[in-house]
Amino acid sequence: MNPLDKIKPNVRGLRAYTLAPDRASIKLNQNENPFEAPDAFKREVLRRFGERQWARYPDFAPASLHEKLAASAGWRADGVVAGNGSNELLQAALMVTVGEGRRVLLAEPTFLLYRQLVTIFGGEAVGVPLDGGLGFDVEALAEAIEAERPDVTILCSPNNPTGCVISERDLARLLGASRGLVFVDEAYHEFSGQTAAPLLKEFDNLVVFRTFSKAQALAALRVGYLLASPELAREIGKAVLPYNLNLFSQTAAEVALDRQDELRRHVRKIVEERGRLFENLGRVNGLRPVASRANFMVVRSELDPKQVFRELRARDILARDVSGYPMLRDYFRVSVGTPAENDKLIEALEEICG
Amino acid sequence: MNPLDKIKPNVRGLRAYTLAPDRASIKLNQNENPFEAPDAFKREVLRRFGERQWARYPDFAPASLHEKLAASAGWRADGVVAGNGSNELLQAALMVTVGEGRRVLLAEPTFLLYRQLVTIFGGEAVGVPLDGGLGFDVEALAEAIEAERPDVTILCSPNNPTGCVISERDLARLLGASRGLVFVDEAYHEFSGQTAAPLLKEFDNLVVFRTFSKAQALAALRVGYLLASPELAREIGKAVLPYNLNLFSQTAAEVALDRQDELRRHVRKIVEERGRLFENLGRVNGLRPVASRANFMVVRSELDPKQVFRELRARDILARDVSGYPMLRDYFRVSVGTPAENDKLIEALEEICG
Repeated sequence: MNPLDKIKPNVRGLRAYTLAPDRASIKLNQNENPFEAPDAFKREVLRRFGERQWARYPDFAPASLHEKLAASAGWRADGVVAGNGSNELLQAALMVTVGEGRRVLLAEPTFLLYRQLVTIFGGEAVGVPLDGGLGFDVEALAEAIEAERPDVTILCSPNNPTGCVISERDLARLLGASRGLVFVDEAYHEFSGQTAAPLLKEFDNLVVFRTFSKAQALAALRVGYLLASPELAREIGKAVLPYNLNLFSQTAAEVALDRQDELRRHVRKIVEERGRLFENLGRVNGLRPVASRANFMVVRSELDPKQVFRELRARDILARDVSGYPMLRDYFRVSVGTPAENDKLIEALEEICG
Repeated sequence: MNPLDKIKPNVRGLRAYTLAPDRASIKLNQNENPFEAPDAFKREVLRRFGERQWARYPDFAPASLHEKLAASAGWRADGVVAGNGSNELLQAALMVTVGEGRRVLLAEPTFLLYRQLVTIFGGEAVGVPLDGGLGFDVEALAEAIEAERPDVTILCSPNNPTGCVISERDLARLLGASRGLVFVDEAYHEFSGQTAAPLLKEFDNLVVFRTFSKAQALAALRVGYLLASPELAREIGKAVLPYNLNLFSQTAAEVALDRQDELRRHVRKIVEERGRLFENLGRVNGLRPVASRANFMVVRSELDPKQVFRELRARDILARDVSGYPMLRDYFRVSVGTPAENDKLIEALEEICG
């Protein structure tokens, strides 16, 4: 007997989602926040946590965090589920909805994990291409929702890796047309100034996913949450493991919610830098950046993007090679860094692209 | 359209696994370690973590922790996967093996989460009862493996909630007879002085799951790991989310591995107390404790165990009501506490059982 025969065929056929552990001084490859959490914030989290009992389990579900998240998002606490990054919650939501014979609609290119998870759960992922300007093709999505009747539609808005956003009006149209659930991944919403959350009151087939890893600068701690109707939150919660969120990350998220103003200043700064980076990239020979509402952007390059990636790395700068994504053969992606990092990026690209 | 119709029927039919958030001064309901992690240990973890960048993602997979775990377990690093408690890894392992038409064998009563997960993934859980002494019925398990040909067999050893252990010889027999995978959940193995890990060299269908939540006294931090062949670890790893283990918990686990001697002293103390508690419980009118190799035991009670639970709670002591488990209608479960906690438990039970 070969033990691997017991692995489901759809999983065996899957290539593991991975990322080479490249190191560089300037890291613009993971859409991270370039501004470290303030020292006073870190000290407060460490202080609170030092006083807690480490040998005891955290709450079965983190009720106090759910309350704070609900207040901050303008939604009800019984419609909130927190977890280890939004990915864990997306996995749970797909776990309870996707199996053999279930169809999931994706606007591609998008975050690769969606398709990976749908495949693991034995469902079928149906891709709808973005439009020629790398924005959401709302007509095509509406038609696909009508024709394919997907059980779930996943929209990442702002979309990773292209940075496009779906308008509230377009989203409402798709929600109304859909007989299935619609998941909106808002990992980057703070940089866009837009959210689907107000639509939760009107549409009970909407689930919104958010994270503390980007605007909140807590990527190391892995905290995310979802917003949904209490009924849907309850069903998705069945696939969320008990005590899923460790007490340290839970504490950090609570402190972050108490100190949102400090974090908002960084978001404003990143949005300013995004504008400056976009302008400067547009002036580099052979590059054409795509306007983005997130803290990153894709850049079309006349030079082979794999070569751009390698030459940046040789200059101690990590970009993201996205040339394997559909529609993005000629593109690379960069996160918005600090002003100094962005200057060095531009300087390096001017050298590389001559 | 009712959005709940999109939830898979097997999930909708499931009762959410939950635990009432009872509070009490003496908490003997979750098999926690009653000895808090030492102050010096906590300070070192906080110090190391205070120096790290919180805005940056942890490693895609925690390679340095995998190396340390491998060295500690006497296994290879490419056969180790770390996660948010062993439950996350058990979930991942079932995710890649269980779907419709797949069968999973359980020795019951056991940890409820196994059946819950198998159901969510659309598989069929087949229970084999423990023997009359609440030990593993190895003959019955061998017969069921022959007759049912399960894709996966899950054994919790020491078993939660009964504390029984499967011997290395019996386990080797079941591994040899099985055409499927065998998962051994060793959450409590440090208290038994026994492990299935040496069998990994001989049986490539074995996966061993362990946790830092019990003997290592890090329940608040949610760290666990699995040991398996590199090929199986790779396939299971496809269902483990990237950056799954937050950097704080990862740091704490690494420090714990550097300071194992301190933790071992607590394990010895808990094992001593287990013996003393067993003897004292046996002297209480109407109670019969079941010998256990874990840090908890079930106790048969002539008085309705629900009443015992309530009366203990009224005395500020939390036990676990396990009377809803198969075979355990007349039992409650207690964790081994500190000597003072165990004394108070005995005193309270003498009052209650008169």
